[in-house]
Formats: sequence, structure tokens, C-alpha cells
Amino acid sequence: MLTLEYCRELDEKDVLAAMKSEFALPNNTIYLDGNSLGVRPHAALERVNHIVRQEWEQDLIGSWNTHGWWELPLHIGNKVAQLVGAKAGEVAVTDTTSSNLFKVLATALKIQQDDSKRKIILAEREAFPTDLYIIQGMTAWLERGYELRLIDGPQDLQDALSDEVVAVVLSHVNYRSGYLWPMQETTAQIHAHGALVIWDLCHSIGAVEIDLNGSDADFAIGCTYKYLNGGPGAPAMVWVPEKHVNQVGQPLSGWWGHAKPFDMATDYTPAQGIRRYLSGTQPITSLALVDCGVDVFLKTQMSQIRSKSLALTDLFIALVEQECGQHALTLVTPREQAIRGSHVSFRHEHGFAIIQALIERGVVGDYREPEVMRFGITPLYLSHEDIWDAVQHLKNILDTGSWDQAHFHRRGAVT
Amino acid sequence: MLTLEYCRELDEKDVLAAMKSEFALPNNTIYLDGNSLGVRPHAALERVNHIVRQEWEQDLIGSWNTHGWWELPLHIGNKVAQLVGAKAGEVAVTDTTSSNLFKVLATALKIQQDDSKRKIILAEREAFPTDLYIIQGMTAWLERGYELRLIDGPQDLQDALSDEVVAVVLSHVNYRSGYLWPMQETTAQIHAHGALVIWDLCHSIGAVEIDLNGSDADFAIGCTYKYLNGGPGAPAMVWVPEKHVNQVGQPLSGWWGHAKPFDMATDYTPAQGIRRYLSGTQPITSLALVDCGVDVFLKTQMSQIRSKSLALTDLFIALVEQECGQHALTLVTPREQAIRGSHVSFRHEHGFAIIQALIERGVVGDYREPEVMRFGITPLYLSHEDIWDAVQHLKNILDTGSWDQAHFHRRGAVT
Repeated sequence: MLTLEYCRELDEKDVLAAMKSEFALPNNTIYLDGNSLGVRPHAALERVNHIVRQEWEQDLIGSWNTHGWWELPLHIGNKVAQLVGAKAGEVAVTDTTSSNLFKVLATALKIQQDDSKRKIILAEREAFPTDLYIIQGMTAWLERGYELRLIDGPQDLQDALSDEVVAVVLSHVNYRSGYLWPMQETTAQIHAHGALVIWDLCHSIGAVEIDLNGSDADFAIGCTYKYLNGGPGAPAMVWVPEKHVNQVGQPLSGWWGHAKPFDMATDYTPAQGIRRYLSGTQPITSLALVDCGVDVFLKTQMSQIRSKSLALTDLFIALVEQECGQHALTLVTPREQAIRGSHVSFRHEHGFAIIQALIERGVVGDYREPEVMRFGITPLYLSHEDIWDAVQHLKNILDTGSWDQAHFHRRGAVT
Repeated sequence: MLTLEYCRELDEKDVLAAMKSEFALPNNTIYLDGNSLGVRPHAALERVNHIVRQEWEQDLIGSWNTHGWWELPLHIGNKVAQLVGAKAGEVAVTDTTSSNLFKVLATALKIQQDDSKRKIILAEREAFPTDLYIIQGMTAWLERGYELRLIDGPQDLQDALSDEVVAVVLSHVNYRSGYLWPMQETTAQIHAHGALVIWDLCHSIGAVEIDLNGSDADFAIGCTYKYLNGGPGAPAMVWVPEKHVNQVGQPLSGWWGHAKPFDMATDYTPAQGIRRYLSGTQPITSLALVDCGVDVFLKTQMSQIRSKSLALTDLFIALVEQECGQHALTLVTPREQAIRGSHVSFRHEHGFAIIQALIERGVVGDYREPEVMRFGITPLYLSHEDIWDAVQHLKNILDTGSWDQAHFHRRGAVT
């Protein structure tokens, strides 16, 4: 029998407990949505005021050099690299995940273009849709006859692979189920068929240990505004390893990716390294704040974060089953640690209304069609006691039936 | 003979004089670089603190709805539309100018694709290079044999047009010379040959009267961080008129451009209208600040801004010629008002060093290869007396030869 006292004991032994003080957390809230929009690091407030009052207001155009604006995508990228098993100079923080997928997919297709029978791009039906939409945009614009083919789940990958597959786009952690692909084995499986793999790290970066180079992966993209706490809609990361980066370019070849952008040459010459994945001028205020989020991670170890994440998700599952076992909840997330990310999803017929009732009580999870209640577990600022309290609220709502679907209108929210 | 007293008289009659109070201006500076990075509106400080402390920190994920984050691209776009002769629903503020050029160029090519002899994309050799680089990225990515052909200046457009031209990309105001294309006549000239035109408004938006629909233009893109004072690297605008917007899509088809993004459908269905030119999740902090810059413009009229801009650029040219006439300065910018934007450029053998000497004195202009000193004239916060003072500094530097090229290293700065 798990108890509140037991949770408190675990908190006392928690090596990450002090990290909570790095963040400005919302009042009276247990925030289980850091996998959608991360919380604000304390440092972001001072930083943004410096940017607005000193860098923008006073130093203006000179800030491109004196405050390092121009270098921010690689400056932050080099820090992000440390979280994902990448080398310095392999990661940039720039543009959006959608744009970055477009760039690396274009690169993958270009690398493979001499093998004219490779026309199939594989992705998961359950992928976050923007990945599918970008692939569709790519296939519709090229006239080579590329085709997106969807697989229904991990069990279907092997059968779908063939010497006609050019590239595979996979979400490292699925945004809804929380399923975690084993990166190294899956990459090897894909390479065995001569295809390239693009890993979407949106729901794993900052939550799961990632070893991109150790896995021999080909490309990766991902959000910085979820577990990395980079700020709302902050620019995304893109990783291209040494083995590919100087092979070909990418079509969004704007001036920030030029070898000598200030020569004002008429011909595009790509910079060496990840810089060629930059394109247009970056939104400095939003971009600089990513630094504050990533800096917190550099004070700890991803192995510590992963350990606590697994402990908290284990606890959450066990407590829901202990406290709410008589209700019609179905665990969507894998029970097996090796294939579980850092959020836990349960299905319930009235999932949407229950999530609204939880939010009214200050327990912020979110809802994803169909019927999925999603709870993001962020080890840097959640305690075991928070998990206990969240489950008690859920139990109370379920036991009393105190949700009323009629009160709540379904409305959008962001992945 | 122009005098300081005359300048002061003009300031007393200036209908825009009060607008200066809308901005937090740098200390001891005459800022003639607002065509590169605009100054900070006062409102931006309160806004950014609200975003960081309330919207991000306290309201978190709910802010996508309650604080209108999701709607910002069109909310601000509708305001920008009023400055450029566009209708509500035709403009979005999103991504970068480079990305937006890629999107609209892809659209233009798609619209024209049945006319298989049209393979030439025309642009100016003197365009800001990112436009050329993006066109090159597009031609290299598509395999149809599109070709970028450069024209040396306005005088060459007519000869370059033919029934093989698919699209023409033109900078409404040239970033270096300040040349202003007559939009309506040029658009008609291009249409007469069956080609489409894309106007790059980076150096005209917020400085020049623009009538996109009145000119029957096809597409427009542009920066918000220059004359519009949207903040460093702020997201860019894109305009697609009713006549084209629902014809075809664009290849960066991310989820923000989907008709029903929260249905999580596997197939991309483009939204109606300009929303389909959205792609990935936007950098909210940087994006929201554009609102503050644009709001200042809505308190005045573009006709007033244009009148004052012409008065100040006329005055600047006249004063330089009166005060510095014996020095080897060559006016690069057109003297004729109808074809002049809102910056003035002079060429001088030691242009780079002179600009550095001016900056040391607090007169911030910038330098563009080769030998071009560029002075941006922003009517919302510059006075006639500022122009007088700036020219006096220039005169003093030139008269005394008080620049020393050896002290200054050439380094990059941002357009």
C-alpha cells in the first residue's frame, strides 16, 4: 500500500529536489503539462528585461555582435548537444520543428536520390500530425513520386521496411501514448534496409537519456518549449551529424546559413557544419530565453532526470491503480520502463470533462483525442508528494462523479 | 542656405513630432539605423513582462486560448494589412522573410506549372542576398529546371521579361541604394508577360505608402523588425491576396496551417485564407512584441509618414551637399522622390571608417559593401534638427579627417 508518508520519504531522498527553486511556478497548481509548455525558469525574467531594456533599447544594432545575437543558434545548440549525445557544432536552435523537419527530410531525400527505387517515406499514423503534414508538403512539391506510407505501430516497422524506403520519420516518444522507441536498435533496423532515420525528439528531449551519435542516428529535430522550458513557442533544435552535414545542403537556404553572409555575394555557398541549417533572421527575444531553460539542465545529469522520471511515472501509474482502480481507466502508456517516456496517459470515456475538472482544482494535465487524459511528469520541479496529491484529486473527481460534461466545451490546446 | 533655425521651424510644424514619445530611445544617440533594427516602443516593456510573468509563468498552457497566442499571426497580420493596402485576412506575421519567400515562390511556381516553358525566375543582382539564396535553394530542390536570372537594375527588367519568365522577385526598396520600384506600373509590366511578381517589402513597409491590392500585386513578404519596430529578429509578414490564396497550398505545410489543427487528422487539409501560410508553432514572446510596434503606426497615417520621410531625406541630401560638398561623397540614392525609399546612401572611399567615427559620436548609421554609408530615416522618432546635427558630425569628421581606418576592423552587421 503506497502512502503519502512513503511519498514524502522519497522526496527527502530526491537528489533533484533542489532544482525546483530554479523555476517560477504557478500558484496553487500541480503542473502536469510541462510536456506541452514548460514552466518559466527564474533566470528568464532578468534575461528578458536585459534584452528589452539594454540590448534592444540601448545597444540596438550593435547587439548583433556585442550581445552575441548572431551566435545564439549555435551557442544554445552547443548546450543542447550535451543533452542528446551530440557533438559541439552539430546542433542549432532555430526556426520551428516543422521547418527543421522539412530541411532534414529534404537532405535525406537528396542523399538517397541516386537510388531511384527508394520512394517510400515511412511514418507513424499516431505521430504528432505536423510531421505527417510536412512530409505530405514535401511529397506534393517534388515530382519524383515520393509516397508517405503510415505504419500503425512499432510492431509494423519491420514489415514496412524494404529497399524502396528512402527515410523513416519517428517520434522518439509518442505525444499521446508516451511510447519510447529504442533509438539504437530501431536505427540499426532501419539502416539494415538502407533507409535513413529522422528522430523527432519533441517529447523526449530533456526527459529521456538520448545518445544520437551513439545510436548512429541520421537526423533529429525537436521542441525546446516543452521539457526544456525554453518559453512559449521558442525556436526548435535541429541535429545533423558530421557524417551527413556537409554532404548536401537544404532548400531553405537563407543568408544565415551562408558561408560568408556579410560578403553579400549573389551565389549561395553553404557554411560548413550545422550553420547551413540556419535560414532567416531569428526571433532573438524568444531564442535567447531558451538559454535559461537549457542552463538548468546543465546543472544536473540526464541520468538523474531519467531516474526520477521513471520513479515518478511508476508512482503515478501505481497510485492511480491503487486509488482509482474501480473506475474505467485504461492505461495507454507502456508499463515497461525501457519503452516509456515521461508522460502517462489514461483513457476514460469522459476524459475531456475529467481533465477540465482537474484543471479547476489546479491539477493541470491535458486532453488528446480520443478520450486520452495526458499527464506530463517533469522531474525538475515535481515531487512525489505532488504525484500523490494529483492522484487524490483524480480519485475524488471519479469517486464523486463531480464532472459535468455539459459545462465544458472542447477547445484547442497545443501539443 | 539651410540653417539650424530653419530645421527647428520645420520641427515646430511637424504633425508627427509627438510620436517620438511612443519610443524608448537610446541615450545620446541620433539613430539612423531604424531601417536595420527598429527602436523599442515603450509598450513593449510592459507587454514582455506580462507575457513572461503572467501569461507564461502563471497561466501557462491556458494562454494559447486566454491570451490569444494562437491567433497572434493573424491578429497582428490584420493590423499590418492596414499599412500595405491589404484586406483583413490576407496577411500573417509568422516565421522569417526567407521562409515566407520560399512559401510564396513555391506557390507562384505551382500556379504557373502547366505552362511548361516558364522556367526563368528573375531577380535583381543587387537584391538583399537572402532572396537570391532562397530562389537558388528552390531551383536546386525542384527538378524541373527552373533557373534564376539576374537583372542589373530597373532599366533591364523590360528586356528580361518574356513568356519564359515564371515569376519576378523584387525588393520594393533596395536595401543599399534606396531605390523604390513603382509598384503598380512594374506589376502591370510583369503581368503583361504572364509572369507573377513577389514584392519584398523589408525596406519599405512602415516607411512608404504601399497599395498591394491597388497594384494588383501577387505576393508580398517583409520584415517587421526594421521600420515597424517589432523587436530584434521578430517574425516576418506574408501577404497572399484573395485571388491566389486558396488556389494551391505551400510546401511548409505544418499544423498551424491546417483547416482543423486539433482534429489530429493524418491528412493535411489547408485552412482557407492566409492561415495556410502558417507552418510550425510560433515564438510567442518575439511575435507578441510586433503588436506594440505596429500599434504605433495605427495612431497615424502612412501618408503622413511618407511626407515626413521625403522631407527628411530631401533635407539630409541637401544638407550633406551644402555642408560637405567639397568632399568626395557620391549620392547613391535616387534624388527623385517618386523612386526613393526612406534611407539615404552615400559612397565614400573611406565609408567604413567614417561610419565607425560617426557611431563613436553617437550618430548610428551603417555600412554596406562596397563603400556605401547608409542612413535610415525614420519619421516617427527623428526630427529635422536630428538631421542637422547628424550632418554636422559628418562634416566635422570629413573636415578634420578624424577617422583612422587602421583603428577599425570590418565586421558583420545585420541588414
